[in-house]
Amino acid sequence: MTNRQIVLDRLPGADHLAAEHFALRQGERPTPGEGEVLLKTRYISLDAANRAWMQGATYRSALEGGQVMAGGSLSEVVESNVAHLKPGDLVFADIGWQEYGVAPGRRLEKLPDLKPETHLLSVFGIAGLTAYFGLLECGQPKAGETVVISAAAGSVGSIVGQIAKIKGCRVVGVAGGEEKGRWLTEELGFDEAVDYKATDFKRRLRAAVPDGIDVFFDNTGGDVFEACLFGMKNHGRIACCGAVSQYDGAAPPHGPRGIPGLIVTKRLTLRGFVVMDFADQNAKALADLQAWVKDGRLKVKEDIIDGLENLPSALIGLLNGENRGKRMVRV
Amino acid sequence: MTNRQIVLDRLPGADHLAAEHFALRQGERPTPGEGEVLLKTRYISLDAANRAWMQGATYRSALEGGQVMAGGSLSEVVESNVAHLKPGDLVFADIGWQEYGVAPGRRLEKLPDLKPETHLLSVFGIAGLTAYFGLLECGQPKAGETVVISAAAGSVGSIVGQIAKIKGCRVVGVAGGEEKGRWLTEELGFDEAVDYKATDFKRRLRAAVPDGIDVFFDNTGGDVFEACLFGMKNHGRIACCGAVSQYDGAAPPHGPRGIPGLIVTKRLTLRGFVVMDFADQNAKALADLQAWVKDGRLKVKEDIIDGLENLPSALIGLLNGENRGKRMVRV
Repeated sequence: MTNRQIVLDRLPGADHLAAEHFALRQGERPTPGEGEVLLKTRYISLDAANRAWMQGATYRSALEGGQVMAGGSLSEVVESNVAHLKPGDLVFADIGWQEYGVAPGRRLEKLPDLKPETHLLSVFGIAGLTAYFGLLECGQPKAGETVVISAAAGSVGSIVGQIAKIKGCRVVGVAGGEEKGRWLTEELGFDEAVDYKATDFKRRLRAAVPDGIDVFFDNTGGDVFEACLFGMKNHGRIACCGAVSQYDGAAPPHGPRGIPGLIVTKRLTLRGFVVMDFADQNAKALADLQAWVKDGRLKVKEDIIDGLENLPSALIGLLNGENRGKRMVRV
Repeated sequence: MTNRQIVLDRLPGADHLAAEHFALRQGERPTPGEGEVLLKTRYISLDAANRAWMQGATYRSALEGGQVMAGGSLSEVVESNVAHLKPGDLVFADIGWQEYGVAPGRRLEKLPDLKPETHLLSVFGIAGLTAYFGLLECGQPKAGETVVISAAAGSVGSIVGQIAKIKGCRVVGVAGGEEKGRWLTEELGFDEAVDYKATDFKRRLRAAVPDGIDVFFDNTGGDVFEACLFGMKNHGRIACCGAVSQYDGAAPPHGPRGIPGLIVTKRLTLRGFVVMDFADQNAKALADLQAWVKDGRLKVKEDIIDGLENLPSALIGLLNGENRGKRMVRV
């Protein structure tokens, strides 16, 4: 009746996240009380936001040293004290980096029976919905427009680019390294990829978008955000999804220049969003996503790592840009 | 047949704008050609944007050393070679800082006969329309919400705050000095004023908006923008109108922190705008503004300085926060 857990032993503060900030602990398997269910973790989702949660309060309260590391998971119901869930059902849970956890049943929803089940954590999960709403609601792309995506090889970015192609846009992905770039253009159908690690990144970006950017879907903030901001067309839209370049390490010495001057002169609309804001439109989004995957227009890239004990290095690697598509850990 | 002109003798670059950047010149009165009109300047509008035009291309091309200083004016038609304008008609013109100028008639529209005529440059001119559209279109204020305005004692800000009061909002103005603050609260009906020059500005701002900011109408950028950004409520709206704190002098060493992280977590919408974008809605806006002035709910503050030769110091003073309400120079 053991329960292996990975705790966030201490907060990294202004340091880069490292293995030493975590500790593997042997806990006890909890017992569900009234209205609760016992869950067994199958897959734990890794997201750059995990690191942002360590910086302070965001859309959830800040993580604290000593707690089981937080993270979303695809979990199986083992024992249920609620009517709408039975053993064997799969749910999306927020019980963190551990093998077993207890959660109130009213917050859990039985997930559809769908293969491969990992898609419930990637294209039909938070990543797919984030890409869908961020691009279509905040970006408002029109056919023929140019869409630029930062962290384009990541879980969200790789879906954003494909949806933008579906919508008839010209799509440029910003990602680290030539190999990721080739993957975006050759396998996912992006029109161009630009390597932000190249010393002449800004020149390359300008060459890739000679007429400017209509929609910028930003996952990174920082220098890429700044470069794209300067490249926006008038009345362009920037969907602010994340700021991964600013999560891991010391606070950046400065924010982007041209804020808010460029927002004014280019009449930009910047709109931050968190995917839960659009929950009432999830059904439509999922139907579209499923149809696009089914007919092959939307390719799913998952980066699955085995072993609870590998969670810290998997997250650290993600922050270093190791992954392509949706990274998760099989427990 | 002389024509006194003030030329922008040389660009200020990264220096603060000073009288030495201008020169008074004796030009010749021009002769209107076919389709043109000869205009005599009555009032020249002074706007912080005048300084921004010296930095580079904005929504108009950059100013150059040696040219007659650019600026909007209320001018009288002296000679007309077009059918829709006759001598004595008033127009809003873009002939710059000079007594006489020639302009193509097709770009000019006869202004209504309205007293005092200076209102055509303030509340019924660019300033009033900017306040109206920026607040109502970009800010989308609802009754009961808290609206914060930077450069609140300026030509645009002082109107924004009053319109926000008309719409039933709680209004907090940020302005420099206790005296401006008293004017905002005691004469214009703002609920509170906060002095951005106070050493404890951030604390005072927080105290003035304990529940956060729904709408921030930003004319200044810089530190005030940053402080308000941190004070925004989730789903707040920021109307980016200008960045006067960044126009005069060297480029700021850094932009605001929290960009774009806070835009994400607070789901902010930032939308830059230039008043001309809403030209098709001018009639409705002017009707509302005129009605509000007529019934006394909208007070008009104009800061009128005499003499073409005083244009440079009037602009420099405006950049230093000297003025209240709409500053203009009578020529």
